Amino acid sequence: MVDVAVIAGSASDGEIVSKATIVLDEESITYDFQVLSAHRDPEELATYVKNSEAKVFITIAGLSAALPGVVASLTEKPVIGVPVAAGTLGGLDALLAIAQMPRGVPVACVGIGNGANAAHLAVRILKM
Amino acid sequence: MVDVAVIAGSASDGEIVSKATIVLDEESITYDFQVLSAHRDPEELATYVKNSEAKVFITIAGLSAALPGVVASLTEKPVIGVPVAAGTLGGLDALLAIAQMPRGVPVACVGIGNGANAAHLAVRILKM
Amino acid sequence: MVDVAVIAGSASDGEIVSKATIVLDEESITYDFQVLSAHRDPEELATYVKNSEAKVFITIAGLSAALPGVVASLTEKPVIGVPVAAGTLGGLDALLAIAQMPRGVPVACVGIGNGANAAHLAVRILKM
Amino acid sequence: MVDVAVIAGSASDGEIVSKATIVLDEESITYDFQVLSAHRDPEELATYVKNSEAKVFITIAGLSAALPGVVASLTEKPVIGVPVAAGTLGGLDALLAIAQMPRGVPVACVGIGNGANAAHLAVRILKM
Amino acid sequence: MVDVAVIAGSASDGEIVSKATIVLDEESITYDFQVLSAHRDPEELATYVKNSEAKVFITIAGLSAALPGVVASLTEKPVIGVPVAAGTLGGLDALLAIAQMPRGVPVACVGIGNGANAAHLAVRILKM
Amino acid sequence: MVDVAVIAGSASDGEIVSKATIVLDEESITYDFQVLSAHRDPEELATYVKNSEAKVFITIAGLSAALPGVVASLTEKPVIGVPVAAGTLGGLDALLAIAQMPRGVPVACVGIGNGANAAHLAVRILKM
Amino acid sequence: MVDVAVIAGSASDGEIVSKATIVLDEESITYDFQVLSAHRDPEELATYVKNSEAKVFITIAGLSAALPGVVASLTEKPVIGVPVAAGTLGGLDALLAIAQMPRGVPVACVGIGNGANAAHLAVRILKM
Amino acid sequence: MVDVAVIAGSASDGEIVSKATIVLDEESITYDFQVLSAHRDPEELATYVKNSEAKVFITIAGLSAALPGVVASLTEKPVIGVPVAAGTLGGLDALLAIAQMPRGVPVACVGIGNGANAAHLAVRILKM
Repeated sequence: MVDVAVIAGSASDGEIVSKATIVLDEESITYDFQVLSAHRDPEELATYVKNSEAKVFITIAGLSAALPGVVASLTEKPVIGVPVAAGTLGGLDALLAIAQMPRGVPVACVGIGNGANAAHLAVRILKM
Repeated sequence: MVDVAVIAGSASDGEIVSKATIVLDEESITYDFQVLSAHRDPEELATYVKNSEAKVFITIAGLSAALPGVVASLTEKPVIGVPVAAGTLGGLDALLAIAQMPRGVPVACVGIGNGANAAHLAVRILKM
Repeated sequence: MVDVAVIAGSASDGEIVSKATIVLDEESITYDFQVLSAHRDPEELATYVKNSEAKVFITIAGLSAALPGVVASLTEKPVIGVPVAAGTLGGLDALLAIAQMPRGVPVACVGIGNGANAAHLAVRILKM
Repeated sequence: MVDVAVIAGSASDGEIVSKATIVLDEESITYDFQVLSAHRDPEELATYVKNSEAKVFITIAGLSAALPGVVASLTEKPVIGVPVAAGTLGGLDALLAIAQMPRGVPVACVGIGNGANAAHLAVRILKM
Repeated sequence: MVDVAVIAGSASDGEIVSKATIVLDEESITYDFQVLSAHRDPEELATYVKNSEAKVFITIAGLSAALPGVVASLTEKPVIGVPVAAGTLGGLDALLAIAQMPRGVPVACVGIGNGANAAHLAVRILKM
Repeated sequence: MVDVAVIAGSASDGEIVSKATIVLDEESITYDFQVLSAHRDPEELATYVKNSEAKVFITIAGLSAALPGVVASLTEKPVIGVPVAAGTLGGLDALLAIAQMPRGVPVACVGIGNGANAAHLAVRILKM
Repeated sequence: MVDVAVIAGSASDGEIVSKATIVLDEESITYDFQVLSAHRDPEELATYVKNSEAKVFITIAGLSAALPGVVASLTEKPVIGVPVAAGTLGGLDALLAIAQMPRGVPVACVGIGNGANAAHLAVRILKM
Repeated sequence: MVDVAVIAGSASDGEIVSKATIVLDEESITYDFQVLSAHRDPEELATYVKNSEAKVFITIAGLSAALPGVVASLTEKPVIGVPVAAGTLGGLDALLAIAQMPRGVPVACVGIGNGANAAHLAVRILKM
């Protein structure tokens, strides 16, 4: 059993994933890492999230960035979203997609590409 | 059995839904209408989409607007997305969320609030 | 006779064209490819579109990106538009120009530079 | 024969048209006024532009605003474009569509909704 | 002792505050509410945050929206930030100010004006 | 005496200047070229504009890009403005500064970095 | 002789002017007020600025907002600029025009419509 | 005792700092330079600002850029803010954070990355 589940929407998000896992390692937080797309792997994603014993989810996605919101709809645990600057708009698309969630399905959005802060936020939540 | 399935993410999207259904009615296209949120009703949405015999989906959503992409991941049929200006950003958030889909899961995005064009596009596809 | 007509507004859009044609080739969809500008070649464009036997049009354009809309005004068939990040604004200009069509002349807009999704959308339409 | 041809893309652009024609009247510039959409009336538009004896074109359009560019591709005379704030983005869409023309097909873009300046610019050109 | 400290940067943020406290009341979460500006009341704010026994902070601010980040620098507990559309930019200013925090000082940003989701996120964290 | 006066706000705008002068040379239009800043050389600029016998002004500027508007306030002749992508915002700053002129002082704005279209527009005006 | 010269680019900026003068009155700072457009009244503006004995200039302008920069080029005294939300873009145009000045001609930009802060900044400078 | 206190929010802002200090050196203005983050070093920052005998503060920060506003809340002296293009949005985030200060706590914002103009503005203030 791990404390945090880290999910990236694409294998190309690796650099941002590392920024998160370096901090988790430093803080001795255990985690599991998966690449699962909300759009391409919806069933595997649902199975993974529902069976995970992690206490907090860190989700990392670019472009239309549905992953954080979909994870938040599959669990009642806290979900952190990291927008990735994956296209030509500097990540503004992913930032808006992750922050502008409808009422009742909250995602904790951090800064564009800021995997480190996603981990620091998870640490704050876990240390409560 | 209907030709088009119209799905709105929120009951508050009714004005944009009407713009689409008026055109469908004029063109004598049969349709079914549902309010199903990608975030709040993921299982009902999946059941509905997988069981639908519609040939084309029209999806209408504001803010982070995950609905069109999620529907596109649940079906191999054409999915049209209509961004709604639901918050304070004039619908730019929804436009980016619907247009900027990852490779392999296409959504046909039309203009902000342009339910009419979603219907006109469905008509073009159905008349092929 | 081909299934898809691929039209780029400029010879410099070649990289995005390739993203579309690779998918069409993989899916064994036949296509014709032309470089025709809505602004510089309006008559050749009109002749080509009106005489084409393709069932779906994929149009690729940057900057003010009038091509998709002009093609949609010349045919009753489905028209897909791909915004290209051709200038210094990351393609936001082309995205808005392609998505924000007036009522009655629909274009199916996909993501900036996402030629692959234009092709995937064409496949969905053709397989109906 | 008139000095200026004023073309609006939609009947709903009337307020901006008036801002232009008031100035033209004050300056005793003769003009003809038409509502012709680049997308809905392409053939009437082409016929009108090619037969017009006006020396300068003022074109007024919102949303994807293809009208100014299409007129500029149909004539070698100066074409002025006025972006209209027709949707929910404050006219940023129309501004970019009118300003960001490809090389070789120039449009003289003025400010959003600034029909008066379109007329003042026409006056400067005509008084040369 | 309360579970949540709700801090608004300005008395004019009351409508957004209510969206949060309605949810907290529904969920029987206890909270304390203060109006404290990061810029106008920095010392009272520091005293309040450091002495608070709340487990989670909900911070609500518009414009340059320094409040969430300043609170996050004063405590090691989780801090949620709600951007308010206080000026003429629809809250884009506050959204960027709250989301784009430097590494090491995380804020959990929710949507513009979405006080309800701030409370729902706090509930998820508290229920862990 | 020359047909066109080309004024750049900064020596660093040379690449965009060349795009204009190449077209003017091709079209055998005579021109004079100056680097004069609206902010750093206001008096030389006023003297130059008022004494110039050119029929059309092409003005090229980045950032807050006051040059085109200031020239338009110094002459009754047509003034064309070219926004330069000089900073980190892709030229959006200069585009807005040049397009959004107040009523009565018109500038003909072309696309970001599009010196060629400034020259093509000047040619259209001169050939009237 | 007054401490501050307040210049608005347009009579329609009166509401923002009042926000500044209320603060100046409260702080017993003497001021002179003029409506002078950088574009429509360049010579009166130059005469006024060069003859003014004010120690600080507060300049208020919307749209392309050249006024603050032009004043800064006419004097070596501190110039404060207030962007006005005069058009349909919420004042983003004026904010960029006032902030993005070229090197050597500084303007002290405050928030959109924030006449009060312009006055508060003037007070800080005068109290040095 | 120095005339100007230059504070950067991060050691990575060095290039922009140099643009300011080169001008201060040229103008023979004495200054002190510190790297102090509003978020990571709030107490050192408060101590430094309150004990500083500088007459003007130049503050340099990227992303959510709280530094200028926090300094302005700690002193009654003039505070100049320089937005840094530190992330993927070209500095638009920092520009808005620095310019859009609440009433009563003014910051004099200059252009993105324009350390030189911050220094020039300080010179104007000091020479009064």
